[in-house]
Amino acid sequence: MADGSWIAIDAMGGDEGLATMLAGVAHARRRHESMRFLLVGDEAAIRAGLESHPNLSAASEIVHAPEVVGSSDKPSQAIRRAKTTSMGIAINLVKQGRAAAAVSSGNTGALMAMAKLALRTMPGIDRPALAALLPSLGDNDLVMLDLGANAECDARNLVQFAVMGAAYARTALDLESPRVALLNIGTEELKGIDSVREAAATLRASPHLPMTFTGYIEGDRLSRGQVDVVVCDGFSGNIALKTAEGTARFVADLLKRAFRSSVRSKIGFLISKPATELLRHHLDPNNHNGAVFLGLNGLVVKSHGSANAIGVSNAIQVAAKMVRDDLTRSIASDLAGIEAQAA
Amino acid sequence: MADGSWIAIDAMGGDEGLATMLAGVAHARRRHESMRFLLVGDEAAIRAGLESHPNLSAASEIVHAPEVVGSSDKPSQAIRRAKTTSMGIAINLVKQGRAAAAVSSGNTGALMAMAKLALRTMPGIDRPALAALLPSLGDNDLVMLDLGANAECDARNLVQFAVMGAAYARTALDLESPRVALLNIGTEELKGIDSVREAAATLRASPHLPMTFTGYIEGDRLSRGQVDVVVCDGFSGNIALKTAEGTARFVADLLKRAFRSSVRSKIGFLISKPATELLRHHLDPNNHNGAVFLGLNGLVVKSHGSANAIGVSNAIQVAAKMVRDDLTRSIASDLAGIEAQAA
Repeated sequence: MADGSWIAIDAMGGDEGLATMLAGVAHARRRHESMRFLLVGDEAAIRAGLESHPNLSAASEIVHAPEVVGSSDKPSQAIRRAKTTSMGIAINLVKQGRAAAAVSSGNTGALMAMAKLALRTMPGIDRPALAALLPSLGDNDLVMLDLGANAECDARNLVQFAVMGAAYARTALDLESPRVALLNIGTEELKGIDSVREAAATLRASPHLPMTFTGYIEGDRLSRGQVDVVVCDGFSGNIALKTAEGTARFVADLLKRAFRSSVRSKIGFLISKPATELLRHHLDPNNHNGAVFLGLNGLVVKSHGSANAIGVSNAIQVAAKMVRDDLTRSIASDLAGIEAQAA
Repeated sequence: MADGSWIAIDAMGGDEGLATMLAGVAHARRRHESMRFLLVGDEAAIRAGLESHPNLSAASEIVHAPEVVGSSDKPSQAIRRAKTTSMGIAINLVKQGRAAAAVSSGNTGALMAMAKLALRTMPGIDRPALAALLPSLGDNDLVMLDLGANAECDARNLVQFAVMGAAYARTALDLESPRVALLNIGTEELKGIDSVREAAATLRASPHLPMTFTGYIEGDRLSRGQVDVVVCDGFSGNIALKTAEGTARFVADLLKRAFRSSVRSKIGFLISKPATELLRHHLDPNNHNGAVFLGLNGLVVKSHGSANAIGVSNAIQVAAKMVRDDLTRSIASDLAGIEAQAA
């Protein structure tokens, strides 16, 4: 990442508490010696917590915040306390230019509302989108967006999401021309809903964009490694994401039941444990942590509420990559390209 | 099922061919001695195939159809050949009252279009819906609809789907008052899109319906066994269904990779094979086969294109239960209740 840039950390957000957040930040710091952090939250608690992480102490400053956004606070409540909560202050540090990005494991709805209000959408973007990396059978993870920032989207929104998602995939996955597809309920041109069909027509007519538009993809192909970016409205995207999470857990639960069903299968399980651990590792959300709000004048990363230290470190890694590649500028330049084409 | 009722079988549809269809019908017949079948398709081929199934021969009649709907035929093409294809003739036998239900493993889009055109929607139903049974961790399978018949739905459609889904769950799952939920991207009252919120308000205000409306459900809870019926528009429903199928296959593929990763894990796999077979059995789509078009003046069941004989037999079982419980009448009477309440 660019030298001299700081990352603001909402040290108080998340279900696992301050100690996990600090352990995660310390882990990220060990990975990248040049990283520096603004740790936002209760000053005394952070100071005490830092005693176990001397390496992190040297690379960070504490920014005191007297309050915390609760996990069940409504976005409207949280917004009113933007200036006193660790989440609100972390975002404001980005707005003020003191931090290049903010990372929080706190309440998603509050983070989204605060980030949108403080940072505003980029010129040319009507609505920001929430993007995440999902596991796949391919060589790299899959970028999927929107995952719930916008329940209803028109064709223009979807095209903007495609541009932002491709820019993000170039950064997060180091791909030159990511393969981008629209989520739909069939692969023929006439399938689905108007917004998706119109977005496909625009993307087909924009071959100059730094992406390879591959058309439609159905839900059962998401994890096959055939595309790098999947674009959808926030309603179906959130449903697809959560259904995938729920199904993975469902299969794992069935497997557990099956392994417990007899002495023989228990023994087989113990012997093959390294194999099932490999599976667990691949599906562990901590290894794909760090959802990103794209389309704002500033970088904000959402870490899973239940992320462990490795998960937090991975979310920070996501933020650092976006800072290094100046993602905001890259999106702006692609958008200018699409507007010029349309004009 | 009611004595004297016949089930029409599109003997030519499906990827597995006539022999599999006939083996499936014969299996269903062995389960239920009173079942009788109208086998629709190429007369000579069916006659030859029946030689291996004397028990089925005695309980069936052949209805000749000179043509077959192809798996990639467009619905509009198929409709034009409704009177000459095995699929079209099977549906027409329902329309004429000669069969109480039709079962096909053929092209879904064509089946839906033909069924809708021939049978028309029931009074009080604006649009038919495609419903299926999905595996869950609960005591029974889960009914989910719409799975793709209608890409866009308003609140009124969703309420009708809830009524039809509950009636279907009473029949297919033998439940008195099925727990019904609307698929949404949050569980708070204000979450999601207008159509879902309005449908929830109507269902909350209809406590006289033979269902227990439980509010919203998110994608990650679908298979937890907490509800019996999940209602959604056909776009997000199809995406959720296919994402679930794809994720289950993804996890199974990862597991296979993991088991193959070392000699040790291969040995563990062999020992625990009965356990993983149990899992495979639970997830096998053949064991949940038989999607249903609800809301038409006649019963039509869609069997998976790749269903094996057991799968076909299960789809026929679904049709037989609907015939036995006179599902069409049951939906009509619930709808009358909701209309009376609204008046």
